[in-house]
Amino acid sequence: MPEIAFEDLTAGRVFDLGTVTVDTEEMIAFARRFDPQPFHLDEAAGKESIFGGLASSGWYTAGLWMRLYVDSVLLDSTALGSPGGDEIAWPAPVFGGDVLTGKLEILEARRSRTKPWMGLITLRAWMYRGDPADGDVVYRSRFTGMFGSRDVPAPAQGS
Amino acid sequence: MPEIAFEDLTAGRVFDLGTVTVDTEEMIAFARRFDPQPFHLDEAAGKESIFGGLASSGWYTAGLWMRLYVDSVLLDSTALGSPGGDEIAWPAPVFGGDVLTGKLEILEARRSRTKPWMGLITLRAWMYRGDPADGDVVYRSRFTGMFGSRDVPAPAQGS
Repeated sequence: MPEIAFEDLTAGRVFDLGTVTVDTEEMIAFARRFDPQPFHLDEAAGKESIFGGLASSGWYTAGLWMRLYVDSVLLDSTALGSPGGDEIAWPAPVFGGDVLTGKLEILEARRSRTKPWMGLITLRAWMYRGDPADGDVVYRSRFTGMFGSRDVPAPAQGS
Repeated sequence: MPEIAFEDLTAGRVFDLGTVTVDTEEMIAFARRFDPQPFHLDEAAGKESIFGGLASSGWYTAGLWMRLYVDSVLLDSTALGSPGGDEIAWPAPVFGGDVLTGKLEILEARRSRTKPWMGLITLRAWMYRGDPADGDVVYRSRFTGMFGSRDVPAPAQGS
C-alpha cells in the first residue's frame, strides 16, 4: 500500500514539496515549443515587457510545481488523477536562476458517494521565490485530486 | 501595429486555432520530465487507471492548446501576458495519436481604468478530440489575457 491514501489527506495538512532552481536553457526551450511569445524567448523583449526580464512561461512554472508534487507526494500515493481546478494564477514573473519552493495544503477532503473507494481532495498549490516566509508567490492554484481509499477496496476490474 | 489589439477582442468573437496531432513520444517525454505518474508513462499502467490507456499529462494537453493559441492569435497581437484564470479542466483523457482542435472565445472585454492603454480580456479556451461539433472536450479553461490598445498609446518607458 502506498504511504499516502485518501484517509491521510486531511484538511489543514501541509506538505513541503522542496525546491527547484529554474534552468534558463530549459525554460527557453519549453517556451520555444509551447509558448513562443517574445518575452519568453528573448532577453531584450523580456526587458521591454511588463515582466521586466526574460520570463518563464506560466506553463513551465506550473510544470516545475507539478514535478515537485509528483516527487514529494504522488509517487508514493494512491493518486488517480485530477479533473481540474478553479484557480490558476501567476502573481509574479519567474526568471532563470530563481530558486522556487513548492507547497501543498489540503483544503477539503470528502469521500465519493457513488465510488466510496475513492476520495476527492481540494488542494491548494503554492510556489514561492525564495523563502516561503517572505518570498514572492509566483504560482498558486486550487484544484481537485482523486485518491484511492486505504480502507475501502476498489472493485475488481470489470465488475 | 499587430493585427489583433484590445479593440478587436470583442465579446462573442470566436477564433479557430487549428488542429494538432498528439505525438506519443513527445507526450511521454513531457510526462517523464514534469508529471512522471505511471499512467502517463506506461501503457499497462494507463490501461489499469481510470483513463483506460496511456494518457497525456493534463499539462502537456494545456501546452498543446497554448501553442495553437500563440500561433493563431498571440504572435500577431498586442498580448502582454496573463495573470491566470478561474477554470482549468480536463473532462476526458487525451491519448497518443489523437487529433485535437483548439478554439478560443472572447467572453468579456474591458479597458483597464488605471492603465487605459491596455485591456483585460476574459477568454474561454477549448480543445476537442475530433470534430468540435460532436467531439469530446478534452481541455477547457477560462482565464484573463492582457492586451495593448490600438487607440491609446502606452506611456514611454520610464515615465
